Amino acid sequence: MDDLTTITVLRKRVSDFRDERNWLKDNTPKNLAISISVEAAELLERFQWKTDEQIREAVKDEVKNSQVSDELADVLILCLSFSDVMGIDISEAIESKLRKAAEKYPVVKTSLTAEL
Amino acid sequence: MDDLTTITVLRKRVSDFRDERNWLKDNTPKNLAISISVEAAELLERFQWKTDEQIREAVKDEVKNSQVSDELADVLILCLSFSDVMGIDISEAIESKLRKAAEKYPVVKTSLTAEL
Amino acid sequence: MDDLTTITVLRKRVSDFRDERNWLKDNTPKNLAISISVEAAELLERFQWKTDEQIREAVKDEVKNSQVSDELADVLILCLSFSDVMGIDISEAIESKLRKAAEKYPVVKTSLTAEL
Amino acid sequence: MDDLTTITVLRKRVSDFRDERNWLKDNTPKNLAISISVEAAELLERFQWKTDEQIREAVKDEVKNSQVSDELADVLILCLSFSDVMGIDISEAIESKLRKAAEKYPVVKTSLTAEL
Repeated sequence: MDDLTTITVLRKRVSDFRDERNWLKDNTPKNLAISISVEAAELLERFQWKTDEQIREAVKDEVKNSQVSDELADVLILCLSFSDVMGIDISEAIESKLRKAAEKYPVVKTSLTAEL
Repeated sequence: MDDLTTITVLRKRVSDFRDERNWLKDNTPKNLAISISVEAAELLERFQWKTDEQIREAVKDEVKNSQVSDELADVLILCLSFSDVMGIDISEAIESKLRKAAEKYPVVKTSLTAEL
Repeated sequence: MDDLTTITVLRKRVSDFRDERNWLKDNTPKNLAISISVEAAELLERFQWKTDEQIREAVKDEVKNSQVSDELADVLILCLSFSDVMGIDISEAIESKLRKAAEKYPVVKTSLTAEL
Repeated sequence: MDDLTTITVLRKRVSDFRDERNWLKDNTPKNLAISISVEAAELLERFQWKTDEQIREAVKDEVKNSQVSDELADVLILCLSFSDVMGIDISEAIESKLRKAAEKYPVVKTSLTAEL
């Protein structure tokens, strides 16, 4: 679905869900930022105490994979709500951040690519 | 831009950035999950010790707003990388999670809306 | 018990618990730091979406209080393990940090206290 | 210093520091829980993207070690403030948590220790 789904459509899906439940008044930027952190830690918890080898095995397990997808979705749903409440255009924010990161970490041409 | 940008396009933008810098080998699910948590906490830090009133004032400040946008972008860039490495379709993951949440928190018709 | 319990005694209690279960090899600094973050987020989760008024009510509830105590204990048990593995003297670390913080935030004498 | 320092003495050191600066009113349980998470993530950040091998090298570096000590101290200072505001006895909380954990993870006698 990611090929066809724009950020705006996803954000609308999330804000409709919230509005049908009258959750808007609790959706302050501070409360949402708290919940983004809480959900990010729940995602991290899935990998806690595990070696890379154990994780490679675990990702073959469909149930565990779907738990990881759910945790990632929680983080993203809250990020979409946060961008909604703050009026942030996510594509622009990412583009702007990558441009700053590109200045900090310029692409290094190796001798091979430099020759070409 | 969010009206026109699909998740796939955003993820491609992030993965190209990473591949040009040969960062792929460090982008294990565990490392990415750590960084999502670290960046989520940096977003939260912006609201630390602040009252809702102080935050309402702060969001009028363009510089502070752009710092918040940058922190949100960091979280999302890492989430896009994570979904890339794990092969997760974000739109499906969000749709699946919202469906589960809808069962847990069904829409309650108030007497007013029930009448209509 | 806090009046009588030294940090060394508490850390020994935690390291004995760990050693009896042969958990030492997993207790790398990185793994412990991950778990400190995960447990800190579980503590934060207890206050998520709650107003200060709701929290004031909740702390009168013994069961909820004991859940909060448990989450705090989890954070501290991991911090004690971390200090053990890293060879950090906690009292010295706190003293050193407070001295730096005192330079950054000197005590401001108000006119009243200045008069006395 | 940990051999001689009780939890009560450490907590008093932290609460005096706070009271001299009139920070008490901001020290709500929710605000402190937010900051514990933020500081825990700063500790985790020190190990981000690093392999265990790189960390083993880094801990030989005194400057880096003292940065890690400072981050751990930040987490603990906030935990002490939190226990102060909530009226939690830390030694009791840890003892109670370890007792519950011992039921969940009983010590398994290996054949060798069983023989002795």
